[in-house]
Amino acid sequence: MTEMIGSDALILPAGFRAAGSHVGIKRKHKDLALFVSDLPAAAAGTFTTNRVQGAPVRYCRQRLSESPRARAIVVNSGIANTCTGRQGMQDAERMAARTADALGTESHEVLVCSTGRIGERLPMDCIEAGLGPLAEGLSPDGGADAEQAILTTDTIEKHWTVRLSLGGTETTIAGCAKGAGMIEPNMATMLAFLFTDAAVHPAGLSEALRSAVDGSFNRVSVDGDRSTNDTVLILANGAADGPVLDDRHPDWPAFQTGLADVCRHLARKIVLDGEGATKFVTVRVKGAASPGEADRAARAVANSLLVKTGWSGGKPSWGRVMDALGYSGAEFDEGAVGLWYDDVETVRGGASTGRDQQAAAIAAGSEFTVTARLGRGSGTAEIWTCDCTEEYVRINA
Amino acid sequence: MTEMIGSDALILPAGFRAAGSHVGIKRKHKDLALFVSDLPAAAAGTFTTNRVQGAPVRYCRQRLSESPRARAIVVNSGIANTCTGRQGMQDAERMAARTADALGTESHEVLVCSTGRIGERLPMDCIEAGLGPLAEGLSPDGGADAEQAILTTDTIEKHWTVRLSLGGTETTIAGCAKGAGMIEPNMATMLAFLFTDAAVHPAGLSEALRSAVDGSFNRVSVDGDRSTNDTVLILANGAADGPVLDDRHPDWPAFQTGLADVCRHLARKIVLDGEGATKFVTVRVKGAASPGEADRAARAVANSLLVKTGWSGGKPSWGRVMDALGYSGAEFDEGAVGLWYDDVETVRGGASTGRDQQAAAIAAGSEFTVTARLGRGSGTAEIWTCDCTEEYVRINA
Repeated sequence: MTEMIGSDALILPAGFRAAGSHVGIKRKHKDLALFVSDLPAAAAGTFTTNRVQGAPVRYCRQRLSESPRARAIVVNSGIANTCTGRQGMQDAERMAARTADALGTESHEVLVCSTGRIGERLPMDCIEAGLGPLAEGLSPDGGADAEQAILTTDTIEKHWTVRLSLGGTETTIAGCAKGAGMIEPNMATMLAFLFTDAAVHPAGLSEALRSAVDGSFNRVSVDGDRSTNDTVLILANGAADGPVLDDRHPDWPAFQTGLADVCRHLARKIVLDGEGATKFVTVRVKGAASPGEADRAARAVANSLLVKTGWSGGKPSWGRVMDALGYSGAEFDEGAVGLWYDDVETVRGGASTGRDQQAAAIAAGSEFTVTARLGRGSGTAEIWTCDCTEEYVRINA
Repeated sequence: MTEMIGSDALILPAGFRAAGSHVGIKRKHKDLALFVSDLPAAAAGTFTTNRVQGAPVRYCRQRLSESPRARAIVVNSGIANTCTGRQGMQDAERMAARTADALGTESHEVLVCSTGRIGERLPMDCIEAGLGPLAEGLSPDGGADAEQAILTTDTIEKHWTVRLSLGGTETTIAGCAKGAGMIEPNMATMLAFLFTDAAVHPAGLSEALRSAVDGSFNRVSVDGDRSTNDTVLILANGAADGPVLDDRHPDWPAFQTGLADVCRHLARKIVLDGEGATKFVTVRVKGAASPGEADRAARAVANSLLVKTGWSGGKPSWGRVMDALGYSGAEFDEGAVGLWYDDVETVRGGASTGRDQQAAAIAAGSEFTVTARLGRGSGTAEIWTCDCTEEYVRINA
């Protein structure tokens, strides 16, 4: 049985502690977070596919390729440590080393993430001065402070917890995420940190994470941009004292499902917290020539500024959806296309069904699904997105 | 010698007449335009690459593939006649036939364009009733009325005229365009109508148009969307009594340059009239692995909502530009990238030069150029775009 736990703050699994505080990178808000496992943990990560990558992304990639194990994740918000050249990499390494000092562990056991403005150096003095007190403040209840310290333009905290029995042992998978604007699919496009007290074989952990991310964070589109620092990390420390899981264990599917559930809930919250967003829209494409073409078509719709501003005005904007499908690059015959808003068919055989009023009633709501059938093959895809409001522009201007 | 003529309204070359009026498709503004050549004219067109195409686009493609000649262009604004199925094609054909009746010419000599809302039928009764009076009102000075009747959300009329000597004959090339939102490159993404009293061989005319469109309308990006109805048409009627031009004529390059000039001026006005736009930005990419990769990188920057909203706030947003280059799909090594705002180098070797204040002074202006050097090869590209303001969202919501 899997139990989903919606709570006011991040609940950490057994054997994890966290802390978050303000060390002066941002003006007022918490800006430094620390997540620590009391036991050595299996670790895995997925990272942005952007060719421009923050120093912490390059650092973590390198670290995890050397050894899939870690004890701690240190995260700052406010400055991304991106486009900072060699100095940036030295700063990321130094941040890991000073964190290890504060924890009495080894520098290679510390993963590092940064989010915020591009092109500025980290204020290493603030960070180094802050790490000692932060480590002293670590607590099993520190999730609330830590998850606040990773936020930037986010307006809500994003966390989710599931409890499930794996090999007869009560186990927890929990996570928190950061991300509001600059969100596009094809990799996380935000920060997410996942923790479990299950014992998981590192190779399996990596595979399970990849699959969960693909079905969740990679389904998300807020504004079509992929960030330079997007990172999802998971630590599995085995503190629940259950069996070591891998893909041959009978409860492996349950673990995979639990992890996917946590990621889906976090990804959904990222869309709902899209800068200025007022609507959650699922874009489904069916009947494409291939899954890749379905994905391309769904993303073209979900990333169309015209479609998204239309939705913000409460209009179905199905003509703009047709337009976006048309320039997506997906192959189809216009005369075969069908379009639905929830269960209202607005386009049949490429032409209007005249049911604009019913579609408008659906688009006036805060959540709906747009389904396009391309009549070409069996490729399907689903993308989650939001509307684009004047508020989005105000935030980013 | 080429003389550029900036005027208050479209100046038609010899042997052309035009008219524009309100027939009731839109509530108040002019909505039906007619452009007529007194002599049979060579004709050519370029059209949207969108898979979803308005009936008039399919009609004109078909017409011009049968014969590269025409006498008239009839255009309505308000309704696009797109996603209207077989009925839509019948309406486009009927619009051509009734126009031919009013002009006393043949239906196959009439080209048809529509722009406006997708998914609605044209009000054929209004259009048919309006065509007679419109034809009666045709005048060599009718360009002003006609160019007003093709507009939708445009806030300014867009026209340009050049006069040049071709084969010793004083010749005119003139044009008008419509387009403000829904503007992306890779084909016109708007309506433009070009007229010349030069005599031009149809095959050459088609080639010259393609080349001029590629260097102008296809360089434009306002919001990344390509419309279903984008069309550029040219009529060359020979009324100037000059020699018949083709690519072996010594003055062919002069004709090509003149046509390209008109297209560039119209395209530039479309960007300046981008919905809510306050800045004209040229995005140049140099040193890409290929021209195609340069184009992809430049478009990623020009279409990035984050970049464009940043510009609207008067910020250089160079971190967001780096991010967009990174996810564009163009191959490059981050450590080799250079970035300039006009002549201010903001990024060298992938890292900030610290010249943010100087860049901010440039981005505060109403026109600037962002140049990215990828250090990979010799591919270059240039895209013209604008900022994205709250006003854009207001207009489209």
